[in-house]
Amino acid sequence: MDWLDEIKWDAQGLVPVIAQEASSGDVLMFAWMDREALRETAALGRAVYFSRSRARLWFKGEESGHVQQVHEIRMDCDNDVLLLKVTQHGHDPSIACHTGRHSCFFHLYKDGAWHAVEPVLKDPSAIYT
Amino acid sequence: MDWLDEIKWDAQGLVPVIAQEASSGDVLMFAWMDREALRETAALGRAVYFSRSRARLWFKGEESGHVQQVHEIRMDCDNDVLLLKVTQHGHDPSIACHTGRHSCFFHLYKDGAWHAVEPVLKDPSAIYT
Repeated sequence: MDWLDEIKWDAQGLVPVIAQEASSGDVLMFAWMDREALRETAALGRAVYFSRSRARLWFKGEESGHVQQVHEIRMDCDNDVLLLKVTQHGHDPSIACHTGRHSCFFHLYKDGAWHAVEPVLKDPSAIYT
Repeated sequence: MDWLDEIKWDAQGLVPVIAQEASSGDVLMFAWMDREALRETAALGRAVYFSRSRARLWFKGEESGHVQQVHEIRMDCDNDVLLLKVTQHGHDPSIACHTGRHSCFFHLYKDGAWHAVEPVLKDPSAIYT
């Protein structure tokens, strides 16, 4: 059986993907893949997502240079979520978020409100020129 | 503004949630919350999800005893994904997966196939009696 057929793709032909930094364990971002994106990811050893807003393959880092090298691809018990173990390239300390932060998960809930608790490491206007 | 209103709930009124073990950094599972589930999670300090298959609130551990204590609730840059930092209770070593494994992400991709690479720590028939 083709390994791609073992995944339960959703009605849009997509699967949710969590990207985790291999070295730190930090969860960097959450995105989606279609079948072609996952095939490319496995073939290239770098993260290729499907951009729902642009409705096309998104080679992570294609504009920003913030490429993700993929060490492991994991699938969950229900065959409908993927987890990547990655090295986040392109900046030191690493930047995965389009806001210029290390991780996309920078809003922390506290006392009934969300607080941005991670610093901007690089101005987005300098990332996307 | 109500913090719950800042979340971009999907068409079904749900938001995807990643649960990460605070001590190890391991990604344990992926699930969904509706508004009430998130309110309960914040109020109780334990993970409450929305079970899509059962179409009701799912107090994680309600059957298995594998309760998740929640230390942090984080939201991503697009306000449409949540990340929980948890302590996974109920078994040592910790079990988050209904298959009796530590993490739900136990299938590793290698050489064109998926391989189950994490041990079953407790027989599911002994967890769900």
